[in-house]
Amino acid sequence: MTESVLAPTIYQNFDTRSDPHHVAPRLRALRAELAASRLDGFLIPRADAHRGESVPLGEARLAYVTGFTGSAGLAFVGIKKAALFVDSRYTIQAPAETNTRLVNVVEVSPATLGEKLRKFVPQGGRIGYDPWLHTPAEIKELGEKLKDRAVLVPTSNLVDRIWTDRPGAPVSPVEFLGHNRAGRSSAEKLADLRKTLADENVDATVLTLPESICWLFNMRGRDVPNTPFVLGFALVPRKGRPTLYLDKAKISPELKEGLGGVATVADARTMMAALRRLGGADKRVLLDPATCPIAIIDAIKGVSQAVIVEKRDPVLLPKARKNEVEIGGMKEAQRLDGVAMAKFLCWFDLEAPKGKLTEIDIATALESMRREEPSLVDLSFDTIAGAGPNGAIVHYRVSRSTNRMLKPGELMLVDSGGQYLSGTTDITRTIFTGKATAEQKDRFTRVLKGMIAISMARFPTGTSGAQIDVLARQFLWQDGITYNHGTGHGVGHFLSVHEGPAGISSRYSTPLEPGMILSNEPGYYKEGAYGIRIENLVLVVESPVGQGKFLEFETLTLTPIDLRLIEEKLLTEPERDWLNAYHKRVWKEIGPLVKGEVKTWLKEATSRA
Amino acid sequence: MTESVLAPTIYQNFDTRSDPHHVAPRLRALRAELAASRLDGFLIPRADAHRGESVPLGEARLAYVTGFTGSAGLAFVGIKKAALFVDSRYTIQAPAETNTRLVNVVEVSPATLGEKLRKFVPQGGRIGYDPWLHTPAEIKELGEKLKDRAVLVPTSNLVDRIWTDRPGAPVSPVEFLGHNRAGRSSAEKLADLRKTLADENVDATVLTLPESICWLFNMRGRDVPNTPFVLGFALVPRKGRPTLYLDKAKISPELKEGLGGVATVADARTMMAALRRLGGADKRVLLDPATCPIAIIDAIKGVSQAVIVEKRDPVLLPKARKNEVEIGGMKEAQRLDGVAMAKFLCWFDLEAPKGKLTEIDIATALESMRREEPSLVDLSFDTIAGAGPNGAIVHYRVSRSTNRMLKPGELMLVDSGGQYLSGTTDITRTIFTGKATAEQKDRFTRVLKGMIAISMARFPTGTSGAQIDVLARQFLWQDGITYNHGTGHGVGHFLSVHEGPAGISSRYSTPLEPGMILSNEPGYYKEGAYGIRIENLVLVVESPVGQGKFLEFETLTLTPIDLRLIEEKLLTEPERDWLNAYHKRVWKEIGPLVKGEVKTWLKEATSRA
Repeated sequence: MTESVLAPTIYQNFDTRSDPHHVAPRLRALRAELAASRLDGFLIPRADAHRGESVPLGEARLAYVTGFTGSAGLAFVGIKKAALFVDSRYTIQAPAETNTRLVNVVEVSPATLGEKLRKFVPQGGRIGYDPWLHTPAEIKELGEKLKDRAVLVPTSNLVDRIWTDRPGAPVSPVEFLGHNRAGRSSAEKLADLRKTLADENVDATVLTLPESICWLFNMRGRDVPNTPFVLGFALVPRKGRPTLYLDKAKISPELKEGLGGVATVADARTMMAALRRLGGADKRVLLDPATCPIAIIDAIKGVSQAVIVEKRDPVLLPKARKNEVEIGGMKEAQRLDGVAMAKFLCWFDLEAPKGKLTEIDIATALESMRREEPSLVDLSFDTIAGAGPNGAIVHYRVSRSTNRMLKPGELMLVDSGGQYLSGTTDITRTIFTGKATAEQKDRFTRVLKGMIAISMARFPTGTSGAQIDVLARQFLWQDGITYNHGTGHGVGHFLSVHEGPAGISSRYSTPLEPGMILSNEPGYYKEGAYGIRIENLVLVVESPVGQGKFLEFETLTLTPIDLRLIEEKLLTEPERDWLNAYHKRVWKEIGPLVKGEVKTWLKEATSRA
Repeated sequence: MTESVLAPTIYQNFDTRSDPHHVAPRLRALRAELAASRLDGFLIPRADAHRGESVPLGEARLAYVTGFTGSAGLAFVGIKKAALFVDSRYTIQAPAETNTRLVNVVEVSPATLGEKLRKFVPQGGRIGYDPWLHTPAEIKELGEKLKDRAVLVPTSNLVDRIWTDRPGAPVSPVEFLGHNRAGRSSAEKLADLRKTLADENVDATVLTLPESICWLFNMRGRDVPNTPFVLGFALVPRKGRPTLYLDKAKISPELKEGLGGVATVADARTMMAALRRLGGADKRVLLDPATCPIAIIDAIKGVSQAVIVEKRDPVLLPKARKNEVEIGGMKEAQRLDGVAMAKFLCWFDLEAPKGKLTEIDIATALESMRREEPSLVDLSFDTIAGAGPNGAIVHYRVSRSTNRMLKPGELMLVDSGGQYLSGTTDITRTIFTGKATAEQKDRFTRVLKGMIAISMARFPTGTSGAQIDVLARQFLWQDGITYNHGTGHGVGHFLSVHEGPAGISSRYSTPLEPGMILSNEPGYYKEGAYGIRIENLVLVVESPVGQGKFLEFETLTLTPIDLRLIEEKLLTEPERDWLNAYHKRVWKEIGPLVKGEVKTWLKEATSRA
């Protein structure tokens, strides 16, 4: 689920994205800037100030300097050494994209980043960082790890000084969601937020996440690929009108009208002065240390006695609890996506046996079928289409240089989704052509059993995703295997395909609540051989059992699961019943929306297991 | 699992333990001391300086003042008001034991204690506490909650001033475990501990938990009921000999010889001076803020620049990972206990149908059958024997005033255990007489399915008990019900029946490791009707699957589970197979050790489901 850095198109592109030849001259230019600034190094993170998975072109500094286009990472450029720190997803991609003679690629986890960075930092060094691109939590952690070795120094961004043709901030049209799409007015959402601010005994909060701001003001934009963001900041006082800070070029009469009088719009360049004034009055300001740029905290703290109250962004939780209208939109989006997936799977079953399909053919066909629906706005992420061994690379992105022909007997992992005006989708199906082996069927069935266990789970109010994660893993664990990713993440309503604060994995301690929409996607990956993942979106709903104190999931995704990959004898009766009921529902909901050979295919694909 | 405060006997006693008439004069005396000390209140916790579940007679200050004999709680005695704060287990027992006209009984959780205490504390008050009986974590938390209202002031213990006939410190014989029982010498364990201290870059640690000290020095005592503790403290420097601080009366030539030259023994009263000297050299000292008394921290910090490094007691984890000899001892103890349980269950099946058995009859019979084994040293806790509705009280203690006759058709929950020289046991069986209802069988079977799910679980190295807890709950959750206690706790080797740092519940994030022994005890409680719990001890072992990267459980407890309470159609084939294999093993291991009617009974009880 990486972003498209080089071309702002809604079509997935399959270019090999980076050119390692740029690395040497850019490092040279950056080192000249280091010398001019009397710094011994500079940190270049993947993130922009808004912490999104996609960043606009002008914020892709990590790719500009190192060539690495992954969705997470941090480079350190010192006077002599340079290093690129990536997580385990990117240990193949990063060396392929950068110049490894000049840049050391180092695998890290959040826990080991500091100590691994320490080895590249000169003793007594002054290391610069851009305070707009780091959170206080990050800098505190790194500072502690570098203690007695180097100091971290905020500075203006050195990359921007050498990036002469750096693209400007995106200016895309802003749309406002009416009540029929948002379900609640911005005024109502603001009233709730003000109540939260009162409960937390704070005078204001600064929102820096576009998903929070877009949701709060019922607006969407096209500033970055894959996610309908308007990039900006918002200052929300407990009393009085909030201010939305946007790039000046975006401020139009239509925008002001669309905000319906609930917020003032101001040029982003005026924000810092406003924050300093805010602090000057000895206020208590709620900020999220996990996502707020240090620059904002410093602006508030720097001038006054203002107390920073560190709490999670107060919009994340209400946003995750979708209202009835948002739920209706998400259901509509899954139906539209179900139609596209039915067309795609039917096409695949016809074409794949000919043995000529490549990963790019498959991703292109799927996108074209999604695009038959006029309300599709974008893909929610670049389709992951991994044939055979490529399927075992969890965040695989197909490019012309990696593109692989699907051979009979190989599994094909297709993880994809769309941004429809009604909502966001995210679905994975593992498909195949030829004859599956006993091992492939065993693994597929264990993954499916885990997916069904989550689908059928019931749990008391207050239960977190961390507590139920094992239900998805237990059948793989019985055979001594597992998968190294979470079982599920939150999904936004026509917003981020990955959203917090709830999810299903050991790191999600937030209790699940009615209205939350999560992915349910266990998998299994055999390196060098194949990958299996089955993913549906599920909605948290009140359970009919447990006297109002229990919750369960309602599955939203409407696409058949390939019965030919199931090892019959591993399924229990309740699991088979679930699968048959699911397929019956898929037929009932999608059948009337498709015709001809697709309808025939769907009838067959949803027949009883 | 409460302790016996009034009589130091290895026999469980069933007295109604406290007399509310003492409360008035003792509060009066304490208030005179408050006035003399110019204090506005005093805190009286249940804990002693060693944080054990059982405390010696002279440390039972909470019971002395309030009459309340539960295993956890805190009293506040102010000039005018007094309050007793207890958790949800004790909301029935506490009011029954204290004088509720003089003492407000208030239910609290750890999260709400501070704010509820605040309501009883006078504005501007000085509240005394004994720094030996509180941890820094506790006082910090309470201090924050009382901020702007009252200050907490360390003082000598006011209760001790009024408790004229207060029993002295216990002086019980100390035994040393030879290599055949401990498996590793104290010198080896100390070498490991010193390595940990080096890794943590500290110069010394002070151990305050008797389980840590007893394990480290391979010694056991009888200072408190139920757990073979020697009460004391130990100072372990990274270099040089550790010092064991004990009550002077305990120090004998045999003790010194038993320590085999690995440790010096000193009078407990000399410890504070030694700690002050330790601090004086600007040392780094590792202390566990969750269990170390403030008095010790103050002694070290008070005089010098010593740095306190707050970490978990470094003995807890190695102690929890039992070695082969300890595991062998624990298995032997479960066999001995299996014999006693077989005798008991046979007796029960013969006697119960007559309809005359009371809870006390049942607990007494079980203890007498355990005591037929000469290596039994004590019960590991007072047997919980709850008939019918009493079974639904999770920490029920039968006394003459609550004793209940078991009626036909009622379930009987029996949770019990022994301290054998070879190891500690803890087992719960739910038994019955008459005819079980369909609902009882349904609930029993769901609890059993959860117990079996844990028994059969496999999981990757690094998995915590928090992650697998849901396996035990899932079948109850499916029907909208649950239980409000952990699924499992650690169990010591001839030591505490509850030990950290691992367990099975959402609060145990410590990874499970080979050699850990845990209880596996899901339950279900229907208030006013019945309680069900099924508990085995399990050992964490490497799994034959998963290429050395997976773990699983080996069940240690050897006692049949009542097949007559099972709803056949709820069991899956793998569950039935597990149960049959378990019963086959019980018969194979316990069958040869019993005779006559017990053998006949066991044969029948372990027949195929």
